Amino acid sequence: EETEREARGHHPSQGWRWMPHHLSKDALWKKIREEAAEDAVAEPTLASTLHSTVLVHQSLEKTMAFVIANKLASSTLLGTHLMRLCLDAFEDDPAIIDACNADLQAVIDRDPACDKYTQCMLYFKGYQAVQSHRIAHWLWQKGRKALAMALQSRVSEVFHVDIHPAVSIGRGILMDHATGIVMGETSIIGDNVSMLHHVTLGGSGTGKGTRHPQIGHGVLLGAGATVLGPVHVGEGTKIGAGTVVVADVPSHSVAVGVPARIIKSNKKPEPCQ
Amino acid sequence: EETEREARGHHPSQGWRWMPHHLSKDALWKKIREEAAEDAVAEPTLASTLHSTVLVHQSLEKTMAFVIANKLASSTLLGTHLMRLCLDAFEDDPAIIDACNADLQAVIDRDPACDKYTQCMLYFKGYQAVQSHRIAHWLWQKGRKALAMALQSRVSEVFHVDIHPAVSIGRGILMDHATGIVMGETSIIGDNVSMLHHVTLGGSGTGKGTRHPQIGHGVLLGAGATVLGPVHVGEGTKIGAGTVVVADVPSHSVAVGVPARIIKSNKKPEPCQ
Amino acid sequence: EETEREARGHHPSQGWRWMPHHLSKDALWKKIREEAAEDAVAEPTLASTLHSTVLVHQSLEKTMAFVIANKLASSTLLGTHLMRLCLDAFEDDPAIIDACNADLQAVIDRDPACDKYTQCMLYFKGYQAVQSHRIAHWLWQKGRKALAMALQSRVSEVFHVDIHPAVSIGRGILMDHATGIVMGETSIIGDNVSMLHHVTLGGSGTGKGTRHPQIGHGVLLGAGATVLGPVHVGEGTKIGAGTVVVADVPSHSVAVGVPARIIKSNKKPEPCQ
Repeated sequence: EETEREARGHHPSQGWRWMPHHLSKDALWKKIREEAAEDAVAEPTLASTLHSTVLVHQSLEKTMAFVIANKLASSTLLGTHLMRLCLDAFEDDPAIIDACNADLQAVIDRDPACDKYTQCMLYFKGYQAVQSHRIAHWLWQKGRKALAMALQSRVSEVFHVDIHPAVSIGRGILMDHATGIVMGETSIIGDNVSMLHHVTLGGSGTGKGTRHPQIGHGVLLGAGATVLGPVHVGEGTKIGAGTVVVADVPSHSVAVGVPARIIKSNKKPEPCQ
Repeated sequence: EETEREARGHHPSQGWRWMPHHLSKDALWKKIREEAAEDAVAEPTLASTLHSTVLVHQSLEKTMAFVIANKLASSTLLGTHLMRLCLDAFEDDPAIIDACNADLQAVIDRDPACDKYTQCMLYFKGYQAVQSHRIAHWLWQKGRKALAMALQSRVSEVFHVDIHPAVSIGRGILMDHATGIVMGETSIIGDNVSMLHHVTLGGSGTGKGTRHPQIGHGVLLGAGATVLGPVHVGEGTKIGAGTVVVADVPSHSVAVGVPARIIKSNKKPEPCQ
Repeated sequence: EETEREARGHHPSQGWRWMPHHLSKDALWKKIREEAAEDAVAEPTLASTLHSTVLVHQSLEKTMAFVIANKLASSTLLGTHLMRLCLDAFEDDPAIIDACNADLQAVIDRDPACDKYTQCMLYFKGYQAVQSHRIAHWLWQKGRKALAMALQSRVSEVFHVDIHPAVSIGRGILMDHATGIVMGETSIIGDNVSMLHHVTLGGSGTGKGTRHPQIGHGVLLGAGATVLGPVHVGEGTKIGAGTVVVADVPSHSVAVGVPARIIKSNKKPEPCQ
């Protein structure tokens, strides 16, 4: 893949791009159904789930809506309402389902422990949290703030990921393991960003304006990395595990330590791969 | 608010005090009902929840008991039992509901992303975890240790916050985001303490006596801050994100790093505001 | 206990050994029933739970299977299927229930806040996560990878602990508080290992081979400790809270800081006790 990308002069830090090895939306849906059908035969304990989650549905949109609704449903948020809400969002803004697909490709591209699309879609709470956030963000942009916050709260309860619904997130996102990820209200996340569990994009000060980080395309945030305040992490940069960042970090560099110091500059253009 | 406080010579590090801008218990309950009624009209998806959680109840106590019971109920802990338990606690010790109210005010005072009381009460797991802990602590003090530990366990499962029921916690507490907060058995938390997610108040040694930290009034503990052993963090002190504290920290200072070093002393009297 | 162990020349860093103060499997089951019966009388709110979880069952295996199944059951994984699965695993490989018992003893030996076996078995999500993992690992070894991953995902949702089903874990394990623990696919954990919440055993690189840590017998990993890559942490070593380890750490030493530096060597042979 690297060679393929480089031959085309494309780096993840330039933003998401569909690559020749990625599946089209139709091919992806076909592949997901094949995987589910195989697993349903091999493991009868999972057959009924795989049927109700994947095999009975007519489209990727319906399966994704079912997955999100099934996870977030509670005694106070009906699964049927949530499924309708997801389908409305997908219909109103096709960029949402496009981003769901890009994220599926990103996980397969970057996580060596994941070799099936269904594994990511059905079992990775980081993936499910990001797609749920895309629905909450759509609600927020429509001015439906109370419901957006109810979804944020359910995502935090169910997936242990707390993303304010105002946060803008790009395509090709990997949130691996995901427990404890927090992103404050005015954070902005570029494309091709990978982050591990316990990552914090936190605020500084108590004003109402921009007070959270902006993360460039292709950034990798290691486990427990903390970025505080309205700082900018440049594209293609890697922030090591446990690092605390309180100032801008230039593009294509590597930062580690508490507080962060830059140990490499303009070194490796694709850390998130 | 600062001016108001200062005019009265009051700092958060002196302990909780009801301020003129805070709502009385009756005014708070009236405001909560107004917020819920507005959201129920604006967002029909939430109407049934808002009715059963807020609008059908006659008092703040009943709404708070309903919220806690609904969140902690499981196949082995009935919601009706839990609601009865909360109401018993509120009746037996009115300081508990007073603290619930103080915490609501504290969140509105300090969290720029929160501008509604219902948002905090219904959707912030840190707030709900603290109020649930107050019930577990009441049980512990009554000698009902098995049930107190069952509640602690449910709080850890549902809110991802693990507070031993013996821990004493003051009023005006903000636990923001809250995932991964841990407080060991002999911890003591003052008033007006604010803490972010992943904060640990941990033990040292294996004895049965005091082995956890004491946190003074008005302290701010940043994301991922870890305080270990029977140390004292003085009032009004700020512990930076990712800091590891293993020794006393004086009042009104700022500590950062692994291990902590004090970078400012007696500087800013209200870090948690 | 220390004297007893030392008189026999046994240290935890030499691997798990049943000690004279430990209960036999039968005595342990008898003790668990006695504790449950006492609590059911003292706290009627818990009586029905204690009956259905402990008192109606004929063996430790059935109680353990009930606990795991009840916690992991969902709308897509039936509790009855899960209980059958656990009992199949215990029957097929008696070493699994032996390890469940060893872990119960380890928690009682090492956690000063725990003085009842039922408290650990019923209420400690770290204990429940490890025993659930043992079932997922058994499935993985049988080639039932899809179901193993479904269990891993449920453990991550319910207990906030993400352990790849391929990970090999020894006996006498304590995971205290447990929120946010992550162990990648090729990690190996020895006997008598104790770890606090937020511990990460993470990968380096993107290859498919060994890319995660190997943790020796008797190691203690403090809260938030992060060990990255195919490094070896020697037996009996203590890794301090918040430490980031990216290179081998010798046996019986103490490492702290970001990045880790070794502050004591060959000092204290039983840190996890």
